[in-house]
Amino acid sequence: MYIGIDLGGTNIAAGLVGDNGTILIKGSVPTMRQRPTEEIIKDMAELAKKLMSEYGTDISEIKAVGIGCPGTINFETGEVVYANNIKMDHYPLAQTFRKYLDLPVKVDNDANCAAMGEYISTGNGVDSFLFVTLGTGVGGGLVLNGKIFRGFNGAAGEVGHMTLVSGGEVCSCGKTGCWEAYASVTALIRQTKAAMEAHPDSLMNKIAKNVGKVSGRTAFEAAKQGDEVGKSVVEQYVRYIADGIVSCENFMQPEIIAIGGGISREGNYLMNPIREYASVKGYNRFMPKSKIITAKLFNDAGIVGAAMIAQGSFA
Amino acid sequence: MYIGIDLGGTNIAAGLVGDNGTILIKGSVPTMRQRPTEEIIKDMAELAKKLMSEYGTDISEIKAVGIGCPGTINFETGEVVYANNIKMDHYPLAQTFRKYLDLPVKVDNDANCAAMGEYISTGNGVDSFLFVTLGTGVGGGLVLNGKIFRGFNGAAGEVGHMTLVSGGEVCSCGKTGCWEAYASVTALIRQTKAAMEAHPDSLMNKIAKNVGKVSGRTAFEAAKQGDEVGKSVVEQYVRYIADGIVSCENFMQPEIIAIGGGISREGNYLMNPIREYASVKGYNRFMPKSKIITAKLFNDAGIVGAAMIAQGSFA
Repeated sequence: MYIGIDLGGTNIAAGLVGDNGTILIKGSVPTMRQRPTEEIIKDMAELAKKLMSEYGTDISEIKAVGIGCPGTINFETGEVVYANNIKMDHYPLAQTFRKYLDLPVKVDNDANCAAMGEYISTGNGVDSFLFVTLGTGVGGGLVLNGKIFRGFNGAAGEVGHMTLVSGGEVCSCGKTGCWEAYASVTALIRQTKAAMEAHPDSLMNKIAKNVGKVSGRTAFEAAKQGDEVGKSVVEQYVRYIADGIVSCENFMQPEIIAIGGGISREGNYLMNPIREYASVKGYNRFMPKSKIITAKLFNDAGIVGAAMIAQGSFA
Repeated sequence: MYIGIDLGGTNIAAGLVGDNGTILIKGSVPTMRQRPTEEIIKDMAELAKKLMSEYGTDISEIKAVGIGCPGTINFETGEVVYANNIKMDHYPLAQTFRKYLDLPVKVDNDANCAAMGEYISTGNGVDSFLFVTLGTGVGGGLVLNGKIFRGFNGAAGEVGHMTLVSGGEVCSCGKTGCWEAYASVTALIRQTKAAMEAHPDSLMNKIAKNVGKVSGRTAFEAAKQGDEVGKSVVEQYVRYIADGIVSCENFMQPEIIAIGGGISREGNYLMNPIREYASVKGYNRFMPKSKIITAKLFNDAGIVGAAMIAQGSFA
């Protein structure tokens, strides 16, 4: 049995995870990210202990703990080299955690953990598996031969910061034209607002007014109700996603590409045009094609993946 | 000892290659690609036999033959699934070659062979190595743990067909906005011609008139002589290259990225701005960075790489 912890900017989520990747029990507490980091770490350990107690598990039954954390992680040492959302700079996360719960600990980037979770859940043991998450940003992780591919420095997998429009929109990373600046939910909201302003009579304006805000759903909802401007926003947004997916495919040809994040809940309304674009525009015309699927675990992916990365390191 | 053969649209180049990747003797004959394919294959075998004879080598001393070929290759079977330049459609290249020279044969994509050749020459045994070639097109190959990464279907490594400008220039592959459509020499010539037309008094027009044509060197030469329009063409072209290099880096973080192809002969005039852009704009700010170097072997890369891929398969 393993413990998987997903340290997010809003909540700490954790679970006991069986050797096969099944969540046995899970729970969460608020991160309150402005407080001293060690208090957050202590709460992570307390949450883990609470779950063990609730499930009637002794510490001797837990083989290791995996922690998914945003930012740049030194996977070997368990140090958070840099994180922005929860302020950490060369912070010894693994070491600090063990002060409160003394078990073998592995820390990895949160997107890597989510990728591993989805791989365990939907990857069926394929040799190559790419997970892409479309949320506030665009993140991802690549699983080769059952292991996260980290590059030579541990920093690989930042698919959201591949250039999609050279010289285009400024990205939060400081570069221009990143995929994230076009295919994230943040980007979709920006695109929706621009279209609403240019077309005040679009149904999107009415929907946003009813709900009280513009969200990642506004354009999709209007499009589904037949609004032409909404349709064109969705069409262009889906094209941005598909163009980046095909970039990944042409470079790496993973057997499965799984798309997750909030937007993936749009299901086949989103996925079918992506699959169609990849089928027509992918460079490879003569060999089998990457299978493009919807991710399944949503918020549980980080818990499962962190636990399974710990398993891979200590088993 | 191995034989490496690089089957190009213009020439067949071949060499005897030592176990350490050194070319012992090499030669070439014209491909004459319009003739029946089997005649081309026969000439490949004849060239190999001629080199063996000139070097005083008996067939028993050759462990295997590697052949680099443009197009989609089935690496397992030695079949050319599809090639456009030298017309082949499900053509049994390895099998046909063995009719004329009966040795173990491996066939791989020509860009993969060049990548392996450069890896052997400059990669120093690093875990992850990306080769990018800027020529008529933009090609590449990724070497992970000493082996070409092929993806699940053998078609990986097509970095030139990652999107750089979503919805941009139509690429020869049928998609729009490919890196190749902006960073190839073909693209540079298009960009140069457009700037010459817009600025008839640019030095580029004089240079092109003297040489008799616009080439990939026209803008670089004008820029080096201080021509402002030439400088801006080069600056934008280098940005396109750098933007794609950073995409590869952000995704895969290879320890070394080697840039080859004719344009790489511009040396540090080309490489330094690419390195500077990657240093400032690469997503990874806190861990060591990919080393960006100039490829070394040029036309010999395909011979060496094909031979070394054969070595890796049969050793």
